[in-house]
Amino acid sequence: MARAYLSRVAEPYPAALAALVAEVGPIDAAEMVRAGEVSPSVASQTSARRTEERVHEDLELIGKRGGRLLIPEDDEWPRWPFVALGNVAGQRCGGEPLALWVRGPHDLAEAAEKAVAIVGSRAASGYGEHVAGEFAYGLAEAGVTVVSGAAYGIDGAAHRGALAAGGLTVAVLACGVDFAYPAGHQGLLGRIAREGLIVSEYPPGVTPARHRFLTRNRLIAALGGGTVVVEAGRRSGAKNTAAITKALGRPLMVVPGPVTSASSVGCHELLRDRQADSVCSVAEIIESVGRFGDDLATEPAEKESELGAPQGEAMRVYEALGKRCAVGDEVVSVESGVPLERVRALLPELELAGLARQLDGGWQKLEVR
Amino acid sequence: MARAYLSRVAEPYPAALAALVAEVGPIDAAEMVRAGEVSPSVASQTSARRTEERVHEDLELIGKRGGRLLIPEDDEWPRWPFVALGNVAGQRCGGEPLALWVRGPHDLAEAAEKAVAIVGSRAASGYGEHVAGEFAYGLAEAGVTVVSGAAYGIDGAAHRGALAAGGLTVAVLACGVDFAYPAGHQGLLGRIAREGLIVSEYPPGVTPARHRFLTRNRLIAALGGGTVVVEAGRRSGAKNTAAITKALGRPLMVVPGPVTSASSVGCHELLRDRQADSVCSVAEIIESVGRFGDDLATEPAEKESELGAPQGEAMRVYEALGKRCAVGDEVVSVESGVPLERVRALLPELELAGLARQLDGGWQKLEVR
Repeated sequence: MARAYLSRVAEPYPAALAALVAEVGPIDAAEMVRAGEVSPSVASQTSARRTEERVHEDLELIGKRGGRLLIPEDDEWPRWPFVALGNVAGQRCGGEPLALWVRGPHDLAEAAEKAVAIVGSRAASGYGEHVAGEFAYGLAEAGVTVVSGAAYGIDGAAHRGALAAGGLTVAVLACGVDFAYPAGHQGLLGRIAREGLIVSEYPPGVTPARHRFLTRNRLIAALGGGTVVVEAGRRSGAKNTAAITKALGRPLMVVPGPVTSASSVGCHELLRDRQADSVCSVAEIIESVGRFGDDLATEPAEKESELGAPQGEAMRVYEALGKRCAVGDEVVSVESGVPLERVRALLPELELAGLARQLDGGWQKLEVR
Repeated sequence: MARAYLSRVAEPYPAALAALVAEVGPIDAAEMVRAGEVSPSVASQTSARRTEERVHEDLELIGKRGGRLLIPEDDEWPRWPFVALGNVAGQRCGGEPLALWVRGPHDLAEAAEKAVAIVGSRAASGYGEHVAGEFAYGLAEAGVTVVSGAAYGIDGAAHRGALAAGGLTVAVLACGVDFAYPAGHQGLLGRIAREGLIVSEYPPGVTPARHRFLTRNRLIAALGGGTVVVEAGRRSGAKNTAAITKALGRPLMVVPGPVTSASSVGCHELLRDRQADSVCSVAEIIESVGRFGDDLATEPAEKESELGAPQGEAMRVYEALGKRCAVGDEVVSVESGVPLERVRALLPELELAGLARQLDGGWQKLEVR
């Protein structure tokens, strides 16, 4: 109840209040805030709302929506994913939340054990939505939780892809978890609440606002073991999530796209600045995130170096053979520049390899495959 | 004439013969080869063709086609671009050529002073050809020579783009410069011979062969100050040029493309392995090649960090204002979580910034822009 109060009294992220909670515990901190007996810095974060007593109302409301208040004291608290937030709390992106409001039938700590954030532009292209959906589907199939922000465009495609695979997806909102935002995603959010998890640092009823999206982004980055930016325009909010991902020391990945597409400009900037890994498949994402064990992307079997070829005398002899008519070994020698005795040794080898055959006292080329 | 003879007597790249030429000079080396008085390693490279005496015929033929034999002793020899080849001559890609057969009204050394190689798949996509053409056009406009291999697909689009801009383009062939290969590029090659440069290590009449393409690729990489791979499938020959570019210590660049396109798989592999810079514009190519002076790609003016925003009290106050009706400062304080005295200080600032206005004793939000 103390954390429910603290969750509403200060706008995230309230660094001074969080420091007080860490020092004296949530119950004493709540008492001190209520009484106004706090340092000036904590007061500046709490004075505006300290008389707003809506704890019972909030807890009742979240209960009615099938949700719960999650606090650091709970087993379900994603302790490890949030450690990195503690390390960067001094920075502007904000530290570990004081509490989380959650809806959905899963354990958040377990969901975050093996999770990847997929984010990107709201104004996504068909290409971007396709790739986000495919990657989310593949990750979900591989047992990876897909974390995103429930926005239009890439976020929505990612949630839908994970749900389509029967996998687990977590939507982190910049408003109360009882709030359907964006309105067009009411159905999607309802499905995530039933089959996945909806998470927010904001108490019920809090409306979305620009600064809340930026504050929220740190939780997306923290809950994902790494972040994939599928598409981002030059000024996309996804670039903020990308910056936080780097600040948290998590793998940042981007999906390349056509250089003619404005929707990929932000991704290409991150690639060019070598801030991010390029990822083109689910296997590459899993490899980049790394900590899932030895999930390395398998090398395509056909991958081979072609540098070895040019000096091969056998290849030069092969190329010097005629396709339509047979030629003598002396002609082959002059044509290929390979000494006659070598030509005479190599031609039978080519024959054995199915690349040449004897005909009319000469040699004829056979096509590969 | 000695180098014309040496150029035909051995199939490039003949490392032992080149070492002999470096030691005794081309005239003595040619005499020794003709007489068969050479080491076994030189003999193995020259015995097959040492009696092929076609120097006068070759020089007459190249002259008839408006061409010339270019040798390291000429001022027009691209001395600096080939230095790197000397450094890697021990490696399998081959060293500096013994001579070059050239057609076209330009000085090759000058053309290579500021040059970029653009290469890629023959089986290019429409996207790839479009980008190759646009980049070549832009580079040519910027006074950069476009080097490529005259193949179908990316190569052809690059040559055409440079020609369309009235710029200089160099086609490096894997056959004699009198040879129209591929046949469908006869017109394009004719135009390059008139307006650009056609270059080959092979004497007139030599036909293309697979190993010659691989040997030729090192000259494309060496003549370009850097190499841009526009599109490359998993097994594209462009990956060979890319590997040589890296071996030569030249900047390797790739153009990102849709991850759903097989034509970009090779580019994305290079990106993922951090072998190459990602380039999305002519400015980025020029920046990556670097040695053209301080040609740095200009940062887009709009580029800005969004990490600063979340903690701004002014933004929180702004977001708490009503769009349709004015609200009192106390409501704004509770809604934003910003202390009342700060709200009272910030609202006039927002008004000055054109973001809020007073109305009916309260405050109303004004939309940005």
